[in-house]
Amino acid sequence: MDQRNLTLLTDLYELTMMQGYFKEKDANETVIFDMFYRNNPHGNGFAVCAGLEQVIEYIRDLHFDESDIDYLRGVGIFEEDFLDYLRDFRFSGDIYAIPEGTVVFPREPLVKVIAPIMQAQLVETALLNIINHQSLIATKTERIVYAAKGDGVMEFGLRRAQGPDAGTYGARAAMIAGCIGTSNVLCGKMFDVPVKGTHAHSWIMSFPDELTAFRTYAKLYPSACILLVDTYDTLNSGIPNAIQVFKEMKNAGIPLTFYGIRLDSGDLAYLSKKAKKMLDAAGFSDAVISASNDLDEYLIDSLKMQGATINSWGVGTNLITAKDCPSFGGVYKLAAVKDKSTGSFIPKIKLSENAEKITNPGNKTIQRIYDKETGKIIADLICLVGETFDTSHSLLLFDPIETWKKTMLAPGTYTMRELLVPIFLKGECVYETPKVMDIQAYCRQELDTLWDESKRLVNPHKVHVDLSHELWHMKNQLLDTYHRK
Amino acid sequence: MDQRNLTLLTDLYELTMMQGYFKEKDANETVIFDMFYRNNPHGNGFAVCAGLEQVIEYIRDLHFDESDIDYLRGVGIFEEDFLDYLRDFRFSGDIYAIPEGTVVFPREPLVKVIAPIMQAQLVETALLNIINHQSLIATKTERIVYAAKGDGVMEFGLRRAQGPDAGTYGARAAMIAGCIGTSNVLCGKMFDVPVKGTHAHSWIMSFPDELTAFRTYAKLYPSACILLVDTYDTLNSGIPNAIQVFKEMKNAGIPLTFYGIRLDSGDLAYLSKKAKKMLDAAGFSDAVISASNDLDEYLIDSLKMQGATINSWGVGTNLITAKDCPSFGGVYKLAAVKDKSTGSFIPKIKLSENAEKITNPGNKTIQRIYDKETGKIIADLICLVGETFDTSHSLLLFDPIETWKKTMLAPGTYTMRELLVPIFLKGECVYETPKVMDIQAYCRQELDTLWDESKRLVNPHKVHVDLSHELWHMKNQLLDTYHRK
Repeated sequence: MDQRNLTLLTDLYELTMMQGYFKEKDANETVIFDMFYRNNPHGNGFAVCAGLEQVIEYIRDLHFDESDIDYLRGVGIFEEDFLDYLRDFRFSGDIYAIPEGTVVFPREPLVKVIAPIMQAQLVETALLNIINHQSLIATKTERIVYAAKGDGVMEFGLRRAQGPDAGTYGARAAMIAGCIGTSNVLCGKMFDVPVKGTHAHSWIMSFPDELTAFRTYAKLYPSACILLVDTYDTLNSGIPNAIQVFKEMKNAGIPLTFYGIRLDSGDLAYLSKKAKKMLDAAGFSDAVISASNDLDEYLIDSLKMQGATINSWGVGTNLITAKDCPSFGGVYKLAAVKDKSTGSFIPKIKLSENAEKITNPGNKTIQRIYDKETGKIIADLICLVGETFDTSHSLLLFDPIETWKKTMLAPGTYTMRELLVPIFLKGECVYETPKVMDIQAYCRQELDTLWDESKRLVNPHKVHVDLSHELWHMKNQLLDTYHRK
Repeated sequence: MDQRNLTLLTDLYELTMMQGYFKEKDANETVIFDMFYRNNPHGNGFAVCAGLEQVIEYIRDLHFDESDIDYLRGVGIFEEDFLDYLRDFRFSGDIYAIPEGTVVFPREPLVKVIAPIMQAQLVETALLNIINHQSLIATKTERIVYAAKGDGVMEFGLRRAQGPDAGTYGARAAMIAGCIGTSNVLCGKMFDVPVKGTHAHSWIMSFPDELTAFRTYAKLYPSACILLVDTYDTLNSGIPNAIQVFKEMKNAGIPLTFYGIRLDSGDLAYLSKKAKKMLDAAGFSDAVISASNDLDEYLIDSLKMQGATINSWGVGTNLITAKDCPSFGGVYKLAAVKDKSTGSFIPKIKLSENAEKITNPGNKTIQRIYDKETGKIIADLICLVGETFDTSHSLLLFDPIETWKKTMLAPGTYTMRELLVPIFLKGECVYETPKVMDIQAYCRQELDTLWDESKRLVNPHKVHVDLSHELWHMKNQLLDTYHRK
């Protein structure tokens, strides 16, 4: 999977602009771009960021090979000196990012690129593509796992994913956000995550009858024997046949460690309750009752409310496509340009009629503020690199738009942690990506830093993202300057 | 891109079932699986099928390499004899499919796999993944192109696509369904389709002022000079500056062949009309007015109704994610099993409470029936392989569920065409995939075989998909047999 050259995975305009910078400007001018998003998908109270490992691979491998150069020549708008320049193109800048699995909020830079403008411009599209996709699926998955309240959630969606990568990297993101396994074998191989699965209706149909199909399956896979019971008639055929097979296993002395049924159609609340009664009556009260069939967080929540006795969930289409909001609106905006004479960054701002859409200028970082006692997040503070904070002093937080909304944190009651960490410095990768299952464990800790009120599915409590006084002041000065023009 | 080994791009259960067939059955038993879908996405009247080229590449390249075998061994449920068998695994069966770019309808087999059960089972997941994705995006794109009523539509969505493949193969599907170009350079390279694009807000912001940014762009790209006018103030700065640059080009004797403006925010109806007036007044009435900003078929339709003067459309997120319905519900169902003694296929059926969900059994093909005079589609007829039809005789069509709904076609008034063509025979590919731009031309012809009533965006007229009398009879006999049990 990693052998592909994704250097041309970019919008043409990145290349036309690059040639423009090359021809008409100082191509080595250093700039800062921030990748951030404006709204949490699915009405969630936060997002779970993901995709950094693939961004790192992409950046590391950036190079135009001869076939790329030949192709670009054929497009007819690029000149030879620019094509020559591309031949030796490598990424030589700095990248800071928030580690994967972190809980993040709108307007925070998830990735910050500090690099010569040519390089910073080229990487925009692929960086957005990768982070947008995986953060979307991680966020959707977190909602589904949250609704399952501790039951295992399996990722099943490969066949409905938007292409091979969407299936495989989507499953990776799903694992980060708490799935216990994926059906996608390639994802299992690439990222060393648990793969799971049983059988399809076609297994049952390829045997003369359901009982034979079940018996054969149980003989082959006695230690993970989940039988699909809805091929012919769930209550009159599927469950009785499954119970029959469990009895035969028990009588044969085969330990029933992980066994049970899967419901894939019909009224899951009703069928699961009936199934539970039938399994209990036969002495199989520890059997797994798993369910699938177009599930999402709302259906799982509703089934739980109805007293469904399902304790394992297979989720496909709605998870792997993030169906009710299939895009994560991450953007990549110019934040500063380095002044060659002074070496300092000149902040840049993108205006908009809509206050929420005005960008935050300058070379920024994020301080996350935790309540010392509970460990929960109080707020995030976007600030300028170089600003120092002392948690033994009080700290005044204020809403950057409705500035009369203020909170004073008392000395010693809070802790701070910087979210952006260095990933590339001068083109060298200085970050080691944790394994996916370690990111999952980290993500679980991250989720513990949120109150339940911020995790609920509908109308969650909003966590404040404030600007430091220094950044707020810089932004307002810039706005004043523009408005005076 | 094609160097990846996608053999493990499958659900684990395909492999657990394969081992089951290997251990417990005749692994060479030949079966037929049909890939079909049940509902047109987006409430459309049809779908545009796509993705076959990638399925062909996937099937051709199917093989388990040593690292795959090692990985599967580590999963802990596969035995050595089965792993040995996988080492020499190749696809040796037949595949029939409907060519890409064809207009298709629910319940028609888009792909038919006739192969030993082990092989037919393995390919399910990847085949569905690929065809589902590309058919989804092709169908969504057709709607957008239809709404644009002859204006050019550009695909712009890479940054919001669900991963690299979704961007690249999604753009491929968009080209099949009628986009005039894509911003995705990798797609352009891989599939020899036009790539297009101009500049971003960051281009404008990286210059001291907008006019300088425009001038520089015009100097570099005079023959495709579309200027983004909304960075600061569309009407008071962007358009006047663009007109200034067009005047300078004209005065300098630079031919204005393809030039104009792009609107990316604000009220596109109002701004485009204002822009048109300003451009006309300055003598630039042939300037392109292009628009982007979260467009879809409904917005384009509405803007046209409002008299917007936009004549070029850039569509991103909504197209590349098929946002309002981001999955194509293609399924893959067992249709028949070969009887070793007789060599004939025993039809198989999957039951359901819902008549629409009962599968069509047997070895089938599809005859498309056209009106001889208009060339428009009258209906599709799913029938059994080997059935013959004579268009010089009358033909009785009837609805397969509401059987009293009948139509009699008079002799000589209709023509027929078989939709499924051979792709693989005995494991050998016998089909040459056309180039994407040729598929686009074919797709345009295909769309001409539909009445406008079937193409409208909301409540389109439904094209009938009927069963031949022979197939209908076989299906009902099978249903009777099951119900008697």
